[in-house]
Amino acid sequence: MGRERDMIKAGIVGGTGYTGVELLRLLVQHPQAQVTAITSRKDAGTPVETMFPSLRGQVSLAFSEPDKARLGDCDVVFFATPNGVAMGEVRALLERGVRIVDLSADFRIQDVALWEHWYRMKHLAPELIEGAIYGLCEINRDRIRDARLVANPGCYPTATQLGFLPLIEAGVVDLDSLIADTKSGVSGAGRKSEQHLMFCEAADNFSAYAVPGHRHWPEIRQGLAQLAGRDVGLVFTPHLVPMLRGIHATLYARLTRDIDLQTLFEERYAGEPFVDILPAGSHPDTRSVRASNICRIAVHRPVDGTTKGSTAVVLSVIDNLVKGASGQAVQNMNIMFGIPESTGLGHLPVVP
Amino acid sequence: MGRERDMIKAGIVGGTGYTGVELLRLLVQHPQAQVTAITSRKDAGTPVETMFPSLRGQVSLAFSEPDKARLGDCDVVFFATPNGVAMGEVRALLERGVRIVDLSADFRIQDVALWEHWYRMKHLAPELIEGAIYGLCEINRDRIRDARLVANPGCYPTATQLGFLPLIEAGVVDLDSLIADTKSGVSGAGRKSEQHLMFCEAADNFSAYAVPGHRHWPEIRQGLAQLAGRDVGLVFTPHLVPMLRGIHATLYARLTRDIDLQTLFEERYAGEPFVDILPAGSHPDTRSVRASNICRIAVHRPVDGTTKGSTAVVLSVIDNLVKGASGQAVQNMNIMFGIPESTGLGHLPVVP
Amino acid sequence: MGRERDMIKAGIVGGTGYTGVELLRLLVQHPQAQVTAITSRKDAGTPVETMFPSLRGQVSLAFSEPDKARLGDCDVVFFATPNGVAMGEVRALLERGVRIVDLSADFRIQDVALWEHWYRMKHLAPELIEGAIYGLCEINRDRIRDARLVANPGCYPTATQLGFLPLIEAGVVDLDSLIADTKSGVSGAGRKSEQHLMFCEAADNFSAYAVPGHRHWPEIRQGLAQLAGRDVGLVFTPHLVPMLRGIHATLYARLTRDIDLQTLFEERYAGEPFVDILPAGSHPDTRSVRASNICRIAVHRPVDGTTKGSTAVVLSVIDNLVKGASGQAVQNMNIMFGIPESTGLGHLPVVP
Amino acid sequence: MGRERDMIKAGIVGGTGYTGVELLRLLVQHPQAQVTAITSRKDAGTPVETMFPSLRGQVSLAFSEPDKARLGDCDVVFFATPNGVAMGEVRALLERGVRIVDLSADFRIQDVALWEHWYRMKHLAPELIEGAIYGLCEINRDRIRDARLVANPGCYPTATQLGFLPLIEAGVVDLDSLIADTKSGVSGAGRKSEQHLMFCEAADNFSAYAVPGHRHWPEIRQGLAQLAGRDVGLVFTPHLVPMLRGIHATLYARLTRDIDLQTLFEERYAGEPFVDILPAGSHPDTRSVRASNICRIAVHRPVDGTTKGSTAVVLSVIDNLVKGASGQAVQNMNIMFGIPESTGLGHLPVVP
Repeated sequence: MGRERDMIKAGIVGGTGYTGVELLRLLVQHPQAQVTAITSRKDAGTPVETMFPSLRGQVSLAFSEPDKARLGDCDVVFFATPNGVAMGEVRALLERGVRIVDLSADFRIQDVALWEHWYRMKHLAPELIEGAIYGLCEINRDRIRDARLVANPGCYPTATQLGFLPLIEAGVVDLDSLIADTKSGVSGAGRKSEQHLMFCEAADNFSAYAVPGHRHWPEIRQGLAQLAGRDVGLVFTPHLVPMLRGIHATLYARLTRDIDLQTLFEERYAGEPFVDILPAGSHPDTRSVRASNICRIAVHRPVDGTTKGSTAVVLSVIDNLVKGASGQAVQNMNIMFGIPESTGLGHLPVVP
Repeated sequence: MGRERDMIKAGIVGGTGYTGVELLRLLVQHPQAQVTAITSRKDAGTPVETMFPSLRGQVSLAFSEPDKARLGDCDVVFFATPNGVAMGEVRALLERGVRIVDLSADFRIQDVALWEHWYRMKHLAPELIEGAIYGLCEINRDRIRDARLVANPGCYPTATQLGFLPLIEAGVVDLDSLIADTKSGVSGAGRKSEQHLMFCEAADNFSAYAVPGHRHWPEIRQGLAQLAGRDVGLVFTPHLVPMLRGIHATLYARLTRDIDLQTLFEERYAGEPFVDILPAGSHPDTRSVRASNICRIAVHRPVDGTTKGSTAVVLSVIDNLVKGASGQAVQNMNIMFGIPESTGLGHLPVVP
Repeated sequence: MGRERDMIKAGIVGGTGYTGVELLRLLVQHPQAQVTAITSRKDAGTPVETMFPSLRGQVSLAFSEPDKARLGDCDVVFFATPNGVAMGEVRALLERGVRIVDLSADFRIQDVALWEHWYRMKHLAPELIEGAIYGLCEINRDRIRDARLVANPGCYPTATQLGFLPLIEAGVVDLDSLIADTKSGVSGAGRKSEQHLMFCEAADNFSAYAVPGHRHWPEIRQGLAQLAGRDVGLVFTPHLVPMLRGIHATLYARLTRDIDLQTLFEERYAGEPFVDILPAGSHPDTRSVRASNICRIAVHRPVDGTTKGSTAVVLSVIDNLVKGASGQAVQNMNIMFGIPESTGLGHLPVVP
Repeated sequence: MGRERDMIKAGIVGGTGYTGVELLRLLVQHPQAQVTAITSRKDAGTPVETMFPSLRGQVSLAFSEPDKARLGDCDVVFFATPNGVAMGEVRALLERGVRIVDLSADFRIQDVALWEHWYRMKHLAPELIEGAIYGLCEINRDRIRDARLVANPGCYPTATQLGFLPLIEAGVVDLDSLIADTKSGVSGAGRKSEQHLMFCEAADNFSAYAVPGHRHWPEIRQGLAQLAGRDVGLVFTPHLVPMLRGIHATLYARLTRDIDLQTLFEERYAGEPFVDILPAGSHPDTRSVRASNICRIAVHRPVDGTTKGSTAVVLSVIDNLVKGASGQAVQNMNIMFGIPESTGLGHLPVVP
């Protein structure tokens, strides 16, 4: 790290989880950024490379106490913390001129009451929410450029919104019956020692979870409603897949008009560096984006035998730790600091 | 094998695949059946226990040439063959009084033209189709009892139909917008050496496949239409999960009436030995039925934010090789031969 | 449970781990035993089937407080507890005439000081150690018959001792340079929420652990020394495999005499119901014993290019939760109560 | 590709396997090389990105017929072919001044008769063997620089030789009783549709294979003998691990002298960019090198209880597709063309 002057000085708060180590992987290899501080209350004093041997020889920092860290001297600070932490700490940093990319959910929902309902806590910085920019780059690129505080989207919301987006923008689907059947690798749940995330519980197994209601539901619905200009009806069903990384969103929308779906999707994402529309008839697999910042999408109109018109089925895959978290966070940083959006994000997928 | 007289003499045609070895596992431990012949053209002469070391000491048979096997002396013959084989061979056996359980798709679709369209071959025994009984025990138990030829259901169709059944029988859902988002372990694809089924292609990966149209779509639609008494609209999307066994069907149906879904499902399956309705709010995982003949189902009505009423989400899991194939085949045999339906099928799930 | 009179009444202490649920799976299906009590301090009051949905409808018991349980009325009590629990509780039960099978390590090592060194605690019942019988059935069958307290062997020790046994009994190997390179599925570490056992740490990964010294080393060495009649030199290296169940021991012993290894092994285990010697040249895989009580062994003499004689390489596989824990515990119970040793242990391996 | 002039023009013969796609991943991101030709007889005409969607937008080439490809115009040609192909094709290329890195085994063994014995075919270019340089960079760096033909080492041989090397160079171990117990992820077997490499055969399973003798045994033994200056006795036991990538070699050597092993290893590899000696007491896991060119090594002297001195246990991990194949091939190319050895090989491991 520190390969040259004029590097973006980046701090990471809460760098001991999977999004933290992924941020480190990306920033260590980023040609225009350097990590100058990384904090963890619980592991203060532990060298980063002791906790993550994969980074041996690459990171000379140790985790530090949050209050001791020189976060105020950073150009940008990433919060890779559990929900509820960033909202208590960003104000002081913003006042010192530090820009923030929050990977947690603290600033994703504009409606404070709704946020408090789903996250079951009092919001500590409601006055900052309105100014927070939702960091889905493909939608909010222009507003991210000058943002002081970016709310980095959730993993499911990224894959789901990018998949529905062209259909909703084009106004060709019934907005009351959207269905997102989504599947996530286990790292999406974070690096917590919880029973259901143990190898012997999750391996060779598959199930849905949180079917009655998941915190990403209001986030996705907010995003889709903004695209649609009205409320949308959405059923959102997450599942846990016995794999490390990857999200696969299978999206269903009832078509209200006949339209060439393939062309619609290709044209909408023509200039996007990180959205790849596959040829008609394709089925993207999650490994085709593993360890990369790419979202690959295929769109289908399957046989359904109904007389009421037909259904668009969109398949959208991302790596939950990259485009679904740390990669998109770096993408946001690049936009915020006026450097080419793809800088440091060109890593090719690792297959097999 | 052969622990007593008056055992049901069972033959297996094509016993080298995963449904074959699973049939052997079940029949070897069945107290009232014995395997007296097992055929495989390709592996004729190979002792069963050489191919499947897990059966060492349990099966003294070798695979034999189909024509040499004493299949005609069996009471029942199971076809665990690729599609297109059974239809050419069952007639001769039926004429000798042998009863048939066909685990392939040859006799599952009543409409010959539809079958020929989806399976891309000419049907060789169309005159036998009408008399073939679709072996979904929970629906057709009475007709299976006297059947000469049972068409054992597919794995996806079993999990999907059992999940939709109470909703359709009760007439409480919109029949034009059913969605079955289904996920299968890799053994569902059989024991073929195909590229996409290799460990290095399927492990740590997830994707949909056959989204434009899958052969189980007409089978499921036929079953649901019979329940409904009319055509149904159905989108069916299968996915491949990096696990050995298990099917998870996530089913969506728009409710047309308010009803207590939990009670509806519990009452419908109250007497069924192999269908287990979980308590409200549950999420069945596939391992909870691993290596057993049980189908576990949970029913939800999640938040959706729509003003058009709500959606029932049914989660239905089976072991694709047991209730989705060989276990249900044995269940059919039990019914056909008038012995208790659960005989030899009491194996508890293997967890973890 | 409780299908007839004169059933063996079995209690389980600490039934919430993987050996606990496996004991339940085996005992529920055992024709001559019934579980009459199951305890867990932490989960007292929770129905067994709530914790283990795979057992729904099979077990009507709830976990109870240890002191409230009617353990004293049992014929046999299994301890499926962490090390250090059984030694404090068995005396009272033994005094009431209850026989004990301890699946923990409390009574496996005859040398108290050695035990205390490796397990880092004071032994609470040293006077019971001498009378405890080491429950490796293939060696101690005669002494198990009348045992009051059986120390059920560890998983690695079972696979390793059964593999070395014929070589050591025959006196054909150098006893100073034995090497056991062993590999275990993750369930061998128990149902603990520890970081390194998380799916995202253990999946798609492989490593050795505890190379400087593992608690099973003195246990194996004690067993081999008893067979040899003298101390043995042993290097023992355990590894963690990203799979649920299974132990594979790769054993190296330098031959001091020329001998037909295949015949040696086949003859030694000729009458054993649960040890299967594979044909010469075989490589047993762990799935060939999955969910069964069988140990499969192959013996090789590979090319080595040395001029000092050759090396025997023994491959020994078991299911760590069955022959390596709960299955062997039931086997011990069968021997202790004078019923056929294989009773309730005939489950065939589940493949794939 | 083709980002600047004076790039090394690289061709790939047989680029449809896992080492082929990994070579592409590395070369596409290499700042001083560009792939100008890639051949595959079987898939000629197929665009690379159609076969490997992970490379979409990165590679504009299609696979071509070997004879049509402009291989003769390349600066270097990599053979990622099955054994037996390169030996028939390299002579013509060498004569045109093209330098060769052969990832297959054709030129790894200096003794032609030995090679023909283990590979069961006649060698087609025995006259080229003597001049071929064995491309284990850490040993042969100086000779690789001017090599025309580099025999890129096998995956097991790389991990094993790097682990034994310091012990043998220092002359501190018994050379007659070396043991290499090695474990490989499934991609080590290549991208072949063979039964035992199917997901349903390899997943949740573990076994040894080729215990009587494996082709990497003579290769390793040749390398160790060159280090030792005499023949060595070696037992080599490979195992298949249910993971995608990674090799873990567990190496045993009987110490003949007392020595500080940690210092020995650290000093030997002090300047090596791709060999990392872990702190004393460590256990490297394969994921800590996943998708990177690093070999991580730990050395132990465990308890063994013998009176004959003690045993060194070395744990050595690599990614079989990178340091064990394509990464080392690029490392060889860098050395051959006089550019910094680490160029294009700085990718950090992907964890989790």
